[in-house]
Amino acid sequence: MTTGKTVLQRKLLPVLDFMLHDWLKVEELTSRNRFEEHSRETFDELLNAASEVAANKFEPAYRLSDEQEPYMADGEVVTPKESHLAFEAYRDLGILAASHDVEFGGMHLPRAVDLASRIIFAASGHNLVPAMLTDANASLLVEHGTETQKRVFAVPELAFRWTGTMCLSESQAGSSLADITTSAVPDGAGHESDPLGPRYRITGNKMWISGGEYDLTENIIHLVLAKIPHEDGTVDPSTKGISLFIVPKVLVDEESRLLERNDVTLVSLNHKLGHRGTPNAALTFGDGTHTPRGSRGAIGYLVGSPGDGLRQMFHMMNAARIEIGVAASSLGMAGFATALDYAKDRRQGRPRAATGKDSSQPQVPIIEHADVKRMLLAQKAYAEGGTALALYAARLLDDQSTGSPAEAERASVLLEILTPIVKSWPSEWCLEANSLAIQVLGGAGYTRDWPVEMYWRDQRLNMIHEGTHGIQALDLLGRKVRMDAGAHLGALGVEVRGTIDAAKRIGLRAEADALSGAWDELLVTTVQAWSTGDPAEALVNATPYLQGFGHVVAAWIHLDLAVAATHSDHSEAPGRIAAMKYFFAYELPRIGAWLGVVARREALCRDVNPDSL
Amino acid sequence: MTTGKTVLQRKLLPVLDFMLHDWLKVEELTSRNRFEEHSRETFDELLNAASEVAANKFEPAYRLSDEQEPYMADGEVVTPKESHLAFEAYRDLGILAASHDVEFGGMHLPRAVDLASRIIFAASGHNLVPAMLTDANASLLVEHGTETQKRVFAVPELAFRWTGTMCLSESQAGSSLADITTSAVPDGAGHESDPLGPRYRITGNKMWISGGEYDLTENIIHLVLAKIPHEDGTVDPSTKGISLFIVPKVLVDEESRLLERNDVTLVSLNHKLGHRGTPNAALTFGDGTHTPRGSRGAIGYLVGSPGDGLRQMFHMMNAARIEIGVAASSLGMAGFATALDYAKDRRQGRPRAATGKDSSQPQVPIIEHADVKRMLLAQKAYAEGGTALALYAARLLDDQSTGSPAEAERASVLLEILTPIVKSWPSEWCLEANSLAIQVLGGAGYTRDWPVEMYWRDQRLNMIHEGTHGIQALDLLGRKVRMDAGAHLGALGVEVRGTIDAAKRIGLRAEADALSGAWDELLVTTVQAWSTGDPAEALVNATPYLQGFGHVVAAWIHLDLAVAATHSDHSEAPGRIAAMKYFFAYELPRIGAWLGVVARREALCRDVNPDSL
Repeated sequence: MTTGKTVLQRKLLPVLDFMLHDWLKVEELTSRNRFEEHSRETFDELLNAASEVAANKFEPAYRLSDEQEPYMADGEVVTPKESHLAFEAYRDLGILAASHDVEFGGMHLPRAVDLASRIIFAASGHNLVPAMLTDANASLLVEHGTETQKRVFAVPELAFRWTGTMCLSESQAGSSLADITTSAVPDGAGHESDPLGPRYRITGNKMWISGGEYDLTENIIHLVLAKIPHEDGTVDPSTKGISLFIVPKVLVDEESRLLERNDVTLVSLNHKLGHRGTPNAALTFGDGTHTPRGSRGAIGYLVGSPGDGLRQMFHMMNAARIEIGVAASSLGMAGFATALDYAKDRRQGRPRAATGKDSSQPQVPIIEHADVKRMLLAQKAYAEGGTALALYAARLLDDQSTGSPAEAERASVLLEILTPIVKSWPSEWCLEANSLAIQVLGGAGYTRDWPVEMYWRDQRLNMIHEGTHGIQALDLLGRKVRMDAGAHLGALGVEVRGTIDAAKRIGLRAEADALSGAWDELLVTTVQAWSTGDPAEALVNATPYLQGFGHVVAAWIHLDLAVAATHSDHSEAPGRIAAMKYFFAYELPRIGAWLGVVARREALCRDVNPDSL
Repeated sequence: MTTGKTVLQRKLLPVLDFMLHDWLKVEELTSRNRFEEHSRETFDELLNAASEVAANKFEPAYRLSDEQEPYMADGEVVTPKESHLAFEAYRDLGILAASHDVEFGGMHLPRAVDLASRIIFAASGHNLVPAMLTDANASLLVEHGTETQKRVFAVPELAFRWTGTMCLSESQAGSSLADITTSAVPDGAGHESDPLGPRYRITGNKMWISGGEYDLTENIIHLVLAKIPHEDGTVDPSTKGISLFIVPKVLVDEESRLLERNDVTLVSLNHKLGHRGTPNAALTFGDGTHTPRGSRGAIGYLVGSPGDGLRQMFHMMNAARIEIGVAASSLGMAGFATALDYAKDRRQGRPRAATGKDSSQPQVPIIEHADVKRMLLAQKAYAEGGTALALYAARLLDDQSTGSPAEAERASVLLEILTPIVKSWPSEWCLEANSLAIQVLGGAGYTRDWPVEMYWRDQRLNMIHEGTHGIQALDLLGRKVRMDAGAHLGALGVEVRGTIDAAKRIGLRAEADALSGAWDELLVTTVQAWSTGDPAEALVNATPYLQGFGHVVAAWIHLDLAVAATHSDHSEAPGRIAAMKYFFAYELPRIGAWLGVVARREALCRDVNPDSL
C-alpha cells in the first residue's frame, strides 16, 4: 500500500498493512477458489483507492456533517451537500458489495480486506453508518430471502442505489423485543402468492432507526419486526411470535422499478450527542398518511417463515455487532492519529534534569514527556488492539464461508464466542482512547477546532446500539461460554494456548506466562460463576465478566501480533512490541478487580434495596 | 432541610444534610467565635434558599445555555436572556460572599456550608463558573492586596456586581508558565504611588479565559500574570520572573466608580465540547484598540511584590482546584439523580425466573435489573464520594482559618496533600458516572432530550483545566508526599488509621482490613517509587499513582461515612452503607494494577521510542 495523503491515512494504512499481511496472511486466501482472481496487488489497490476517496471526500465532510444536522422539511429529511458528495463518491467506488458474489455486484473480496476498507472509511467520516446497515440488510436477504427478493431488493442495496435499515425498537420495547406491538395482517386474497413474497399490511411505530429517512437515496428498504395475530386476534407474547418483513419506503415492481409511496411516515428525528450527520428517525407504519393500492397499512413482504423473524434478524445483528467493533476501532484510530501528530508538533515544558528544569532551554515536543507517551501507548493499545480484533473476526468470517469443513467449524465456534467481545471491547476502550486523545491536546482538545471531541461524542453510541454492553455481557456469560458444554470456550483456549507457546519459543516468556495465568483465571472464574447453576447468582456480575474476558482476549491478540512482529521487518513491527508491552504492564493486571466479584458471585448489585440508592 | 422541588434537588438535599450534619458535624463550628451567629437553622435556611433559586432559575436555563452559545457582536459577547436571569438571581441572593468577613459583604458562613450551596448551584447549571472564579479572584485580593485594592476591587466582585478572571495561559505557555511573554513596564513618573497600587502598562496575549468577556456584568477584573523586564530589557526566564497585576476591563477610581475603557480587547471565543454557556475567550492586552489616559498599553496594578506572581496565583489556584472537585461532583450528582429517577420509572424486560422469562408478566422497572443497580451504585459511589471529599476539604478550610493552632496546622497539612485528589478524583470518576448515566438511559441518554449527555460533555473539562490530571499527579508524587520528609503523608495516615479503628469497633472488620492493606500498599509503593531518588524513575508513573492514591482516599472517605451512618437513623444512612460496600467490592481492588507499575518503576513510558508509536 502507499502511505496515504493525510495524517490519518498515513497512520492507518501501514497498521492495516501489517495486520492483513504480516499477521493474518490474507494473501494465502487467494489459493481458495472464491478468491482466486485476487492477489496482494488487488487488495492493496483497493485499500489505496478507499484511502484516496476517504481522504478527499469523507475527511473534509466529517465536521460539517456534525455541524449541519439533517432537518425535517415537508416530511422529508434534508442533508447537507457535502453528505451527498461523500455518499455519491462511495457509491461510485462500488465498494459496498465488494465481498459479495458477482451476481450481487460483488468482486469476491475477502471480508478481512473488506472490513479493512471500512475501517478506512469509518475513521474518516461516519456517513458510513447507512452503508453498514445497508450491507447487513442486504446480506440478510441474500441469506434468508427468496430469489426474487434478493434480485429486487438486495441488488439495488448492494449497488448503494437504495439503502437499508433495521426497524426493531418500539418505545415500550427497546432491548426487550418480545414486547413489540407492531402487527402484520395478510393483505387480502392472494396475499400469499405475491411474487415479492407473502404480502401483509403492517401497522405500528418504530424508533431508533438510523438512516430511517433522508434525501440521499431514492428508496429505503426497511426490515421490520412485527407480530402476526392469531385468528382470535391475540398474539404470541414471546419472541417466538416475531416475524420479519421487507417494507420499502417506495413500492417497487419485480424489476425494481419505483411505484407509489408506501405508508411509511417520518414522525421525528432524534437530536443526538454525536453521529449528528446520520439521521436517526422514528417512523410510523400504516397511519394512513399514504394509502398504497387504495387502502391503509404499509405493505410488507414476509421474509422466511412466520415466527422466524428474530432468528433471521440475528443474522443481521451479528454482522452489525462486528461492524460496531470496526466502527469503534476506527474512531479510536482517528483520535490516536490526531493526538500522535499533535504531540510530535506541540512544544510545551522541558524534561526534568538532575539539576531541575533549565528554563533557558527551548521547550520540547510534548511527546518527550513520559505521561504523554503513556496516554499515546494506551490509545495505541486500545485502537490498534480493537482494529486487530475486528480484522481477526473478519478473517474468521472468510474461513467460515470458504475454509475447509474443519476450518469453517472452528471459525463459526470462535465467532460465536468472540462476537460479544468484538462488539464491546473496542466500544468501551476506544471511548477511553478518544478521551485520552482529548487529554493529550488539553484545552485545544476541548474545542471544536479539533476533531477529537467529535470522535469521543460519536464513539459514545457504540456501547449502546446493536445490543448494549449489558446485553453483550449476558450473551457471553449466560449463553456463549456455556454452549455445547463449554466447547466454544475450549476452542478459544486452543488459540490462546497456541499463541502462548509461540511466544515462549521466541523468548516472550514473561508475557506468555502472564497470559497463561490470566486465561486460567478466566476459566476458573467461569466455573465459579456457574458453580451453583443459578443464573440469578452467576449473571449478577456479567458486565465485569465481559470486561475481564475482553482484556484477556485483547492481551492474547496483542501477544499474537507481537509474535508476528518478531518475525517481521515491517515498519510497524516495533510498534506492535511496544503496544504489547504496554498492555501487559498496565492493562492485563486490571482483570483481577473485574473477575474477583464474578468468581465469588458478589450479590450486592442483586440484593441492594433500590430505596437505598 | 426541606426536600427540594425537583428530582435533582430531592436527591441532593438529603445527601448534603447527612454529610454536613451526621458526618462533618458542622453545627459544632458554631461554638467558634467566627460562626457564633450561626446555627443549624441558619445553615439549613441558606441551603434551602439556594435550592429554591437553583430549581427555579438554574435548572431551566441549563440546556438553553448549552444550545444558545454566547456570540461576538461589535467586540462584545452576547449571552441569552435566561443566563442574565440566572446571573441576577444569584446576585440577588447575595450568596457569593457568604463565607467572607462582614466588611466584604459576607456572613461568616463556614466554607463547608458555603461549598454545599455551590454543589446545589453547580449541579443545577454551570453558569456558576464565573462565580467560582470571581470568588477565587477576590479571595486572592483579600489575602494579598492592599486595603485599597480590597475595597475597590474585591468588594464589588464579592457582591457579584463585577466578575473576575484569571489570565495565565498564552498560546506558547499553557501548563508551562515560565514561558509567558506578556510584559509589564512602569507607567511613567509616579507610577509607584498610584493609590490602586504600583501602575504598569501591560502588553501581551492571553487565552483560555473563562468569563473573559460577556454582557452579564458592568466590569471584569482580570488577574494577569506578566513579566517586568530588567533595565536591560531582558526578562527572568523562570517562574521567578512572574508578577501579578489587577487589570480591570473598565478603569475605576478609588470609589469603584467606572471610568474609561482599559486596553483589553476580545480576540475570539472558543467553541467548546461543553460548558457552552460560559464564554471562554482569548484577550489581547495593550494592542492599542483603546488608549486609556491617552496612551497604549493596558493599565494594571501590581499585587504584592514583583516576582511574587505565581506564588500568589497559587492561592487562587488551590481554591480553584477544590472548586473543580465541587463542580465535578455536582455534575456527577446531577447525572446520578437523572439516571436513578429514570431507572425507577422506565419499564423494560423481566427478571429471570428459575423457569426462564415469563413474557405474559408485565415488564419491570429497569432498576430491578442487577446490572442497572450496578451502574447506579457506581454512580452513587463516584458522585457522593466526590461530594463527601469536597465537603471534607471545605471543612478543613474552616479548621485552617478558625481552628486551634493544632487544628489549623493539621488542616493545612491535610489540604496540601489532599488538594490534588480533591481536584482529580471527582474529575475522573464523575466523568465515568456521567457516562454510566447515559448508559442507564440507553438510546434516550444519547439524545439531547435528556440532560445526561450534556453533563458528560461539561464534565470532560474538569480533567483539563486548573492543572491537568498529569500536573496533579506530578504535584502529588513529586512534591506533596515528599514534603517535610513525608509528614503530610503521615498526617493523612493518622486520619485513615482513625477510620480503620472506628470501623473495627462497629464490626466493619473486613472493610477495615481491606483499607488497612490498601494504605500499606500505598505507603510501600511511595517508598519504592522514590527508592532510587531519581525523579526520572519515580515520576514516570505519576498518573497511575494519582489514580491509586485517589481510590484509597475514596475508600477511606466511604468507610468513614459508613461509620457515621452506623450511628445514624438518617434516611441516607442505608445508602452510605450500600455505596461503601460497592466501593470495597468493585473499586478498591483496582489499585493493584495502578500501583504495581509505580512500585517497580516501570520505565516503558519513559523509554519507548516515539517513532514506534
